[in-house]
Amino acid sequence: MRIEILCTGDEVLTGKIVNTNFSYMAQKLEDVGLSVHWGTTVGDDRESLLAAFKLAGERADAVIVNGGLGPTVDDLSQEIAAQAAGVELVLHEGWLATMESFFTRRARTMPPNNVKQAMLPATAEMIDNPIGTACGFALDIGKARFFFTPGVPRELRRMLEEQVIPRILARSGEPASIHLKRFHSYGIGESHADQLLTGLEDLDPTGGVKLGFRAHYPQLETKLTVRGKDMDDVHRKLAPVAAAVRERLGNFIMAEDDQTLEGVVLAELTKRQATLTVVETFTAGQIAARFAHLPNAEHVFRRGVVVRHLTELHNVFGLSDVALSSALTEEATGAAANAARDQTKASHALVSLIELDEGADRMDFGGTLWTGIATPEGTEVRRSRILGGREWVRLGAVEMGLDCLRRQLQGLPVVERIDFEKT
Amino acid sequence: MRIEILCTGDEVLTGKIVNTNFSYMAQKLEDVGLSVHWGTTVGDDRESLLAAFKLAGERADAVIVNGGLGPTVDDLSQEIAAQAAGVELVLHEGWLATMESFFTRRARTMPPNNVKQAMLPATAEMIDNPIGTACGFALDIGKARFFFTPGVPRELRRMLEEQVIPRILARSGEPASIHLKRFHSYGIGESHADQLLTGLEDLDPTGGVKLGFRAHYPQLETKLTVRGKDMDDVHRKLAPVAAAVRERLGNFIMAEDDQTLEGVVLAELTKRQATLTVVETFTAGQIAARFAHLPNAEHVFRRGVVVRHLTELHNVFGLSDVALSSALTEEATGAAANAARDQTKASHALVSLIELDEGADRMDFGGTLWTGIATPEGTEVRRSRILGGREWVRLGAVEMGLDCLRRQLQGLPVVERIDFEKT
Repeated sequence: MRIEILCTGDEVLTGKIVNTNFSYMAQKLEDVGLSVHWGTTVGDDRESLLAAFKLAGERADAVIVNGGLGPTVDDLSQEIAAQAAGVELVLHEGWLATMESFFTRRARTMPPNNVKQAMLPATAEMIDNPIGTACGFALDIGKARFFFTPGVPRELRRMLEEQVIPRILARSGEPASIHLKRFHSYGIGESHADQLLTGLEDLDPTGGVKLGFRAHYPQLETKLTVRGKDMDDVHRKLAPVAAAVRERLGNFIMAEDDQTLEGVVLAELTKRQATLTVVETFTAGQIAARFAHLPNAEHVFRRGVVVRHLTELHNVFGLSDVALSSALTEEATGAAANAARDQTKASHALVSLIELDEGADRMDFGGTLWTGIATPEGTEVRRSRILGGREWVRLGAVEMGLDCLRRQLQGLPVVERIDFEKT
Repeated sequence: MRIEILCTGDEVLTGKIVNTNFSYMAQKLEDVGLSVHWGTTVGDDRESLLAAFKLAGERADAVIVNGGLGPTVDDLSQEIAAQAAGVELVLHEGWLATMESFFTRRARTMPPNNVKQAMLPATAEMIDNPIGTACGFALDIGKARFFFTPGVPRELRRMLEEQVIPRILARSGEPASIHLKRFHSYGIGESHADQLLTGLEDLDPTGGVKLGFRAHYPQLETKLTVRGKDMDDVHRKLAPVAAAVRERLGNFIMAEDDQTLEGVVLAELTKRQATLTVVETFTAGQIAARFAHLPNAEHVFRRGVVVRHLTELHNVFGLSDVALSSALTEEATGAAANAARDQTKASHALVSLIELDEGADRMDFGGTLWTGIATPEGTEVRRSRILGGREWVRLGAVEMGLDCLRRQLQGLPVVERIDFEKT
């Protein structure tokens, strides 16, 4: 099945906004085993839109058009779709009534120009938008089925997942039940993960499981797309493969599906009614900023401290010069973690102390990370060295700090070599 | 002049990476007064590439192709370009020598498959890449001039700005000298700024100045594209218009061109050999994280403190219950700022205390921000209320804190109503 995506709008074409709708749609299609074959971007321009609709109608089986469904004069999708299909625009009474009640519920009167949003090509199937005034629609142009979707991301997302993808799957003859399973890991590079998972797809002999990756440093997402004749079938196929992923990636898996690393840490701390103090240096507050603003973190987060000099850490915690000398050690890091825990009366403390290389930023600029964790069970310290420039070191150190805490809370080894570290 | 952009590669087509190269190229062209007319995205696929090159060659005057210049088998741009132009691939001895010295300087031997990167269509003009092994090239396909560029963002950026855009400008007959002037503001929405700058372009009667905006909440970028016959002419045209922007947007302009808000704050503090302590609540460390990791911030940044409860602020600074009661006031915020300054022996303290609304996140979820600044000159407090959901409040509060400090340091009023705040 040949699928194209056609994005419209001057803001996208001029680069004023980055086209994240495109990558979102393409990924969602990949996740259900479909592929995009061609992408087109045109502006709010009659001639370009008509040409783009006709070209896609000649090439593709299904086309998703994004944008141009708003109430203003530069929103042209319905008009040009009707022209390309050779039909008239007609008022969709049902959608007009839906829009009117949308405004009535908000104690507002519908502006006259919104009527335009209920004018659909005569042959179109209306597609519901439960959260906005731009309905979608589907119709044939050339040999392709076109699906028109709104440009507002949250409206697009809901319509794509609930309405458009099921229709495309039905046309493609793909099995009705598809599930995407995701694992989030830290510390394994994509090619290493690929190697660790060699032969994984063969664990389901029906060929119903597809493996994929998405790397966004410092995290890696491992994805399993599972197809079956119903959800029972899907879960039966998924079970042995998911178990194998958990076994092979092991301690490096920090979260699954919609979980996040910081959410997992928060849940673990909440479960034991713990409190947390975080001490940072070059990460500059970013470890706290991943965590402390989350709903319910206010019950867990005790205090964050950010310093750029160890001398200032002496001032904060009154550590002796012996305990925290200018060259960091395992003992000094552990002492800082214990002082942070004791003096703020938190049950847990996470300390990330970083010795940066000298000189200007460069590709081989590095940092030595000293991560310390103090808990009721004792103290753990991990030393690690990361190269790749100031920003790379900073991002890596934030993840390292949170993941060491996750490991401690889950009873896993805090010290385990990762792919990004040098000796 | 009709310009198209053609992005290639499976990673972009499948949405595995967001196509920021497209928006970057489109904006750079806009900045010099050129417009993109059509965008195409195809994968690493011979048939699609050939079809895309031929279609663009029929429609456009100039085409920028991005990606597909690497050494691996799925990098097909040179091969398909030659096929579309009806010419052979030939070895470019000059580029081969450049690559070999590139490897020699790194004490490495060039792998044999890199030779592929020196194979160019016979009619191509080679375009230098001073920072990578993928040279660019230009050639005619159909009626268009094609410019092939590397997919690695920093290589693309340099080649586009130094080599490709000048060539396109030369072909377009645009004046040789073009300059982009940018102003960064906080607190004015795009439509308000547009209204404040009404008639601005007319200040240059030659029509050489074009006004544009780019909004990325909470900041707004105001852009002036100036064209002239040489740089003297450009600066003569720009001067009165830039002066008018500074006058009309006034105190809201916090940085110009490559400056950032946090960079301006750091420079002001560095200039007076000051030191800064930052106290945060719901911003969760993000104010410190914008600032404390910057080069040279280690000389200025004294301490960051993050808490989620005012009671913990009592513990940190030993404030009396009277000074910092559970309902925040101007006095309490000022007292916290003074305590932070005094007790950490910093010359400056910035305090951002936030009272969040109750209940779950929603569109009208809001927060009341109390921003306090203590300096050798005294204490200032600003109260502000922002609605729009948890994340919107958090982003707004980070900017509010940094910008209040910028205003104090520049001798401007800390309290001045912004467009994003409610009464």
